[in-house]
Amino acid sequence: MQLRKPLLSALATCLLGAGLIGNTFAAPNDAETLGKIRDAAMQDDWAYQRLEDLTDLVGPRLSGSPGATAAVEQVADAMRKLGAKVTLQPVKVPHWVRGEEKGEIVDYKGRPANITQKVVLTALGGSGATPATGLTANVIVIRDFDELKARAAEVKGNIVLFDVAFDQAMADRGLAGPAYGRGSSFRTNGPRQAAELGAVAALVRSVGGANFRLPHTGLTVLADGKRIPAAAVSAEDAMLITRLSKRGPVKLKLTMTPQMLPEADSFNVIADLPGTEKPEEVVIVSGHLDSWDLATGAHDDATGVTGAMAVIKTLNQLGLKPRRTIRVVAWMSEENGGAGGNAYHKSNKAALDKQIAAIESDGGAGRSFGFQASVRPQYENCLPRCRNRWCRSAPACSSAAT
Amino acid sequence: MQLRKPLLSALATCLLGAGLIGNTFAAPNDAETLGKIRDAAMQDDWAYQRLEDLTDLVGPRLSGSPGATAAVEQVADAMRKLGAKVTLQPVKVPHWVRGEEKGEIVDYKGRPANITQKVVLTALGGSGATPATGLTANVIVIRDFDELKARAAEVKGNIVLFDVAFDQAMADRGLAGPAYGRGSSFRTNGPRQAAELGAVAALVRSVGGANFRLPHTGLTVLADGKRIPAAAVSAEDAMLITRLSKRGPVKLKLTMTPQMLPEADSFNVIADLPGTEKPEEVVIVSGHLDSWDLATGAHDDATGVTGAMAVIKTLNQLGLKPRRTIRVVAWMSEENGGAGGNAYHKSNKAALDKQIAAIESDGGAGRSFGFQASVRPQYENCLPRCRNRWCRSAPACSSAAT
Repeated sequence: MQLRKPLLSALATCLLGAGLIGNTFAAPNDAETLGKIRDAAMQDDWAYQRLEDLTDLVGPRLSGSPGATAAVEQVADAMRKLGAKVTLQPVKVPHWVRGEEKGEIVDYKGRPANITQKVVLTALGGSGATPATGLTANVIVIRDFDELKARAAEVKGNIVLFDVAFDQAMADRGLAGPAYGRGSSFRTNGPRQAAELGAVAALVRSVGGANFRLPHTGLTVLADGKRIPAAAVSAEDAMLITRLSKRGPVKLKLTMTPQMLPEADSFNVIADLPGTEKPEEVVIVSGHLDSWDLATGAHDDATGVTGAMAVIKTLNQLGLKPRRTIRVVAWMSEENGGAGGNAYHKSNKAALDKQIAAIESDGGAGRSFGFQASVRPQYENCLPRCRNRWCRSAPACSSAAT
Repeated sequence: MQLRKPLLSALATCLLGAGLIGNTFAAPNDAETLGKIRDAAMQDDWAYQRLEDLTDLVGPRLSGSPGATAAVEQVADAMRKLGAKVTLQPVKVPHWVRGEEKGEIVDYKGRPANITQKVVLTALGGSGATPATGLTANVIVIRDFDELKARAAEVKGNIVLFDVAFDQAMADRGLAGPAYGRGSSFRTNGPRQAAELGAVAALVRSVGGANFRLPHTGLTVLADGKRIPAAAVSAEDAMLITRLSKRGPVKLKLTMTPQMLPEADSFNVIADLPGTEKPEEVVIVSGHLDSWDLATGAHDDATGVTGAMAVIKTLNQLGLKPRRTIRVVAWMSEENGGAGGNAYHKSNKAALDKQIAAIESDGGAGRSFGFQASVRPQYENCLPRCRNRWCRSAPACSSAAT
């Protein structure tokens, strides 16, 4: 979720998937109208075509990259073609670029002559760089933050590897989100904590269930003065380093040359379908337009963006006019800090009560399991009882206001 | 299978997994003895420790590489420690080394300004090189060999992509081997056929069910004068190129710098446990010692090698003496042509009838589904009826001769 501050109402209606709000239309807001919206959306491949455009023609869209710029233009053009009122909201975004990245186990007990071993790794977003000629140090394998504390005195001058296995059993129970969250806490916070203790670099075991010697990137939060090199290593390589460490000291050489460039100029793409009765009141449907750089971000989050775009397409096609303004937003820079969401919040701070509801789809496209929501206290009874964890179903709320 | 010429007998006994031959022991060859062998093997982690040594300490073992040399020494040492009679049989092996490898889609219809797209690829074993500055050409997407023939006139000067999906449904029916075989026929033979038609490079969609934008290497067979660059591209990238091709011409830039060096000196590692009654007659249990360079080849085929090594360990431990010589062989260079198997065959050509049986395990370690076998005609009735495809079970043969 990008924008947690605005409230969410009428959860049940939202479940139709079109991101619309109960009692929003001038047309009768009955089962028939809602059914028409659902059917029109399901029978049309317009959103899928936009998804293809975004992922096939543009590809990766990391904030500050040419892909992000192209994506802004492409989405804005598509929305203008629908007749929506398009605004490009300026956002200053982090501009981190990946460089060379290489890992090698250069020494360990039992190493045969002339043998070093490759480590498959990829820099985490925000990672610092090693010297261009690389950095060589011993590795300390850490299993959790308690162990990091307990072994704090050993960290200085070494590379810390957080070798924490992804909880596949948890994911298989339908709790992929929390399993990912647990794993990624080491990615987000581990390198910073290691840096504070004097580590010269930090590695985290790749988060996620797809091993296949595949490192999975993501954001790590580092303080500017202590921006050490930080990378995800594949599960297989993390396990190898851990096994070798049981035989004796393990020495790694890392060569990583990412750069943190000055902030870049970018945009949230905002496309409005004006309301007929309360045009100043806004209902947001959204996804984030940026993606990590290693893939095309189809599920994270081109489907969120293009699904939101199709809301205006579908309403136009059915000739339905919303009473409030439906605002499609393609947020910029969710992946590395949420600059787009913050810029929008800042620009609407004076009249946040006009932001009636905001939805972002950022859990991948597929069968819906539920919503995560933040609401004002008076609407709490609208929410399912399973707050603070992922819900498999969200009961209707009869008291949804406005 | 490395060595198809020697016959295989006594299939039922072999199924015990120790690679031994019926009526081989001086000790009573009864269920009790066989049970002891099985139990000793199952309760001991000696083979697993050797597997760790081979994959963790040495790692990849492509023929001609330092890893292959280290593996020869490590396995020979381990077998000497068991008291086996170790011979290093010289083998001249191909020496192909991977270089830089980069792919980029540099033009296509609908390409936004400043956008090019990365193609994740890896050179196939035996691939030729592009110029150091790369090679740029249009791509022709081909779905099967018939289409290649039909479009032969279009190939010259272009890059051919064989975009053939792995048959996951077939693999899921328990036929992973044939599914892999069907897919890898394009990898093995496609680039050569494309080269004959004047293609400047060839790409094949990565073979196997593990997508995750992962290219899977393997051997491609190219004629020396027409050693064009040949690579596996990830399934995702193959599909992207195919989709973009439907929009219009697609231009790729490939930079690949592998080298085919002069043949290198290497060895089959041969470790004998001499027979008490017919020491000149040999029963081979084996795996191949070399592996591809992108991983540690645990299943392909360190488990085959170390499982075979454990045959001598287990018999020694139980004090069992075979009547014929049990010969453990760690073959060199199976992956890129079978030089080790050929060298062994050549050196035993004069007295092939002394090679009573030969088993190689090269299907990964796990639950056994059956055997693939080549036998002399008189033993054909020993084989299950499902010759020429993979068998899920192999019935016992009561007529197995010695």
